[in-house]
Amino acid sequence: MSEQDGEAASKDTREVIMEATFRALRERGYGDLRMRHIGEEMDLTRQVIHYHFDGKDDLMASFLEYIAEQYEGSVEVADDMDPRAELDARIDQCLFGPEFDEFTHWDRMKVYHELFAHAQNDDRHRDILDEHYEQIKGSIVAVIERGIDEGAFRDVDADRFGQLVTDAIHVGRERRISLGHEEAPEEAREAIDEFILDSLSVDE
Amino acid sequence: MSEQDGEAASKDTREVIMEATFRALRERGYGDLRMRHIGEEMDLTRQVIHYHFDGKDDLMASFLEYIAEQYEGSVEVADDMDPRAELDARIDQCLFGPEFDEFTHWDRMKVYHELFAHAQNDDRHRDILDEHYEQIKGSIVAVIERGIDEGAFRDVDADRFGQLVTDAIHVGRERRISLGHEEAPEEAREAIDEFILDSLSVDE
Repeated sequence: MSEQDGEAASKDTREVIMEATFRALRERGYGDLRMRHIGEEMDLTRQVIHYHFDGKDDLMASFLEYIAEQYEGSVEVADDMDPRAELDARIDQCLFGPEFDEFTHWDRMKVYHELFAHAQNDDRHRDILDEHYEQIKGSIVAVIERGIDEGAFRDVDADRFGQLVTDAIHVGRERRISLGHEEAPEEAREAIDEFILDSLSVDE
Repeated sequence: MSEQDGEAASKDTREVIMEATFRALRERGYGDLRMRHIGEEMDLTRQVIHYHFDGKDDLMASFLEYIAEQYEGSVEVADDMDPRAELDARIDQCLFGPEFDEFTHWDRMKVYHELFAHAQNDDRHRDILDEHYEQIKGSIVAVIERGIDEGAFRDVDADRFGQLVTDAIHVGRERRISLGHEEAPEEAREAIDEFILDSLSVDE
């Protein structure tokens, strides 16, 4: 087996383990999850997990990176997109989709928000989530700054607006997931429009 | 022992178990918590927990009610308080205090937010948290409605404003707890003032 084949095989193995982790988390939640439950969701032997990961916390850290990468890589924005249209596309993506194959947006968000709450007990998880938060917020700040430069938005504090939008998205998802408020993401979208984005407009 | 003594004793026992649960949660987080860890935090025998509660989920449901009651009962508002002053007092209380004896506001909020995320896996926990959410939101909606009636606030959709304030509080606390953003509660307070409460003003 060439080195390249080895890399490909180990990448596939990682993917298999990540998907098994996803299924096990979806079924049981984080609190009751044991390594053996993840093993039960795979065709590979459980030893493969222990070969690649140093325990549950290490596996979960990789799993968080895996979910974060999928969200960060999945917004497609054309170069000549209007700043407000790009902002809308990014917000809708975080609130309502992207769609993937086996696991829905809400399957993903459920495990993401549960691990988010657990991060208070694990510095490595906290660092990964904080980096993801800054990445998402940063992409929103960047389009607000572009809008200001192009004269489409008023000259506001882009960092502050980006943070507000990111936080409003977070709580809209969380209220749906934890409290079962099915309409919360739509309510968050309306509140973002009315209280945040409308005040960016130069027409006022 | 009279019936009244029996009630008092069992109330004290509940309090002892709740405080032991608090210490165990603070130490370990929810995911790794076992009933025996709670037993280790008490002077009473562990059998007392099993006498009062039907397992970990039942104990946690009572614990959630216990924390929620403390927050709901602790805002003191004078009858003749100005609506804006009452609103400020309620928001500050949810974001920054009240202070209690052994456990600080943030000790409480850490376990509250962790259990909030876990509620997606437990309908009874979800119901308790949803009721608490409605209670907190309801107290904010009520003071906004009073302000509208008294001519202190514009005639806005009080329910919508109450929800926004409640959600902004939630995410400000959560960002501090999960991501370690120490300044997040103050940022949430400023955003609530600037983007929500200022638009209530009749002077605009």
